[in-house]
Amino acid sequence: MSQPRILSGMRPTGPLHLGHLTGAIDNWVRLQETHACFYSIVDWHALTTDYADPSAVKENVLEVATDWLAAGLDPARSTLFIQSHVPEHAELHLLLSMIVPVPWLERVPTYKEQQQNLAGKDLSTYGFLGYPLLQTADIIVYKADAVPVGEDQAPHVELTREVVRRFNNFYGPVFPEPKTLLTPVPRIPGTDGRKMSKSYGNAIYLKDSPEEVRAKLRPMVTDPARQRRKDPGDPDKCPVFDLHRAFSPRETQEWAAAGCRAASIGCLDCKGKLADYLVERLAQIHARRPEFAARPDTVWDILRDGARRARETAAATMDEVRAALKIRY
Amino acid sequence: MSQPRILSGMRPTGPLHLGHLTGAIDNWVRLQETHACFYSIVDWHALTTDYADPSAVKENVLEVATDWLAAGLDPARSTLFIQSHVPEHAELHLLLSMIVPVPWLERVPTYKEQQQNLAGKDLSTYGFLGYPLLQTADIIVYKADAVPVGEDQAPHVELTREVVRRFNNFYGPVFPEPKTLLTPVPRIPGTDGRKMSKSYGNAIYLKDSPEEVRAKLRPMVTDPARQRRKDPGDPDKCPVFDLHRAFSPRETQEWAAAGCRAASIGCLDCKGKLADYLVERLAQIHARRPEFAARPDTVWDILRDGARRARETAAATMDEVRAALKIRY
Repeated sequence: MSQPRILSGMRPTGPLHLGHLTGAIDNWVRLQETHACFYSIVDWHALTTDYADPSAVKENVLEVATDWLAAGLDPARSTLFIQSHVPEHAELHLLLSMIVPVPWLERVPTYKEQQQNLAGKDLSTYGFLGYPLLQTADIIVYKADAVPVGEDQAPHVELTREVVRRFNNFYGPVFPEPKTLLTPVPRIPGTDGRKMSKSYGNAIYLKDSPEEVRAKLRPMVTDPARQRRKDPGDPDKCPVFDLHRAFSPRETQEWAAAGCRAASIGCLDCKGKLADYLVERLAQIHARRPEFAARPDTVWDILRDGARRARETAAATMDEVRAALKIRY
Repeated sequence: MSQPRILSGMRPTGPLHLGHLTGAIDNWVRLQETHACFYSIVDWHALTTDYADPSAVKENVLEVATDWLAAGLDPARSTLFIQSHVPEHAELHLLLSMIVPVPWLERVPTYKEQQQNLAGKDLSTYGFLGYPLLQTADIIVYKADAVPVGEDQAPHVELTREVVRRFNNFYGPVFPEPKTLLTPVPRIPGTDGRKMSKSYGNAIYLKDSPEEVRAKLRPMVTDPARQRRKDPGDPDKCPVFDLHRAFSPRETQEWAAAGCRAASIGCLDCKGKLADYLVERLAQIHARRPEFAARPDTVWDILRDGARRARETAAATMDEVRAALKIRY
């Protein structure tokens, strides 16, 4: 129990795709070997952008949890839970709100970025502004020593560290400053060449069958300069090659790159080889998935049990927080 | 149990003074006859302004509760509790934050007013901005039908009604729109003529002994035009007369006004008569106060029991809220 503590979370966006695997899950599975891990499905965060229609959240939570378990997150070693099952996150968020200047939140880079990216949604809300502070509470209520994140989320951990310093300065040393465990996130394009995302309809899901994987790869966009079979291509401009980099062994990458440049292989050959490795990679997940997919009650029970354990830690922290704030009566 | 529900709250600022009595408590005591009343000591709200040094909060909570009980708030009829003992307020506050535009909060009149009034404190915090939304959660987590407030707080109830309409519009009719029960708040000046306030050091406290009351009234400022005994005065410019209006019977008010204008009575005569009525008024409170002041454990128990009852109602509401938001799993 003296392992350093990790906290990370994922929004319930639905079935997980290859981007989730390489950007987070693979790393999370490894971290289980060396860390006490708290992995949270952050349903309240989903509401910051999807408040107008939260009808898909419940089903999406189940999809995420099922994929987590299939991908190797192990409830016997890690604490897997739903954020809203641990109301201590909300209480700590409220208490932290008292000491955090609004400009600290306004200058988080994702704040204005997201408002622009999701221009169709009204994100002028108090909750959206407070979103990174809720992340701070998510992290420090477990006194996490480190947070594995991609580069885009690093400013949120930086904010967390600032908030921790301010809190400890006012009330005494309650929280450790969590370290940023930067996860290298390979570029994972979707079938249309844009970033893989459910909302673009271009994703290959962990649960996709071998046939579905092959069917999605076949029409995937490639280097646009390679119009015909005999045209040489540039792997560095080909989204399919990005996937080779992430999922194929080095010798296959070299075969594909050389064949592309020399026009000695066709794109379908290249995609077929990629599909082989992808299917192989997903086979382990597919082997475990049906047992959970067929028993949603088991999955909910795992999440409830995780929440029970998470609450033990969170409640102990909140007790200290109330004492530090002199509001433990 | 079919009585309409009231929610009101008071910050733990310390011992209560005459301003609290006429501005809130008298009314709250009466409302117990006709309403199911939830009265909350809102310690989280105290942190919105006193976050830098919350060391007095606990003692102040006890002072407020002791005065409440002495003044006739009856734990057998009303639910008396500390806000932070009911974490459901924080959870609802967080959920409401998702749907409330920041400008709604920025335009609450007290927001900029308070930032100016308390210029020595940094009130640019996220929590201070969200303060009226926390009040909204305080109110609607009990599905209060009405909120007794002074005029200065009326915009907060208006915000509450707006938030309720937006919530119900998104998620279905969960909350009633609470009515504003406008409490006429008589002008209660302190001994220096400014508004009575602990922070001005000009307050007459409910727990002040008859001797203390008389000693505080004696040097109280009067109509500044009445320099000498033989100068006629103007009761409408005299803070002492404001207190007569609030605490003396009509015939004494007439005696004081006429005597002041004719210079037929001195200010000390006038103050002596006021003191008689004040002391009489406080006698009932003083009769009950020692039994609670001597037994702080009893007071804490009453508050804990109140919180237990409050949580039953709040938890039932939150269950409905989670169902409406489709995040009840």
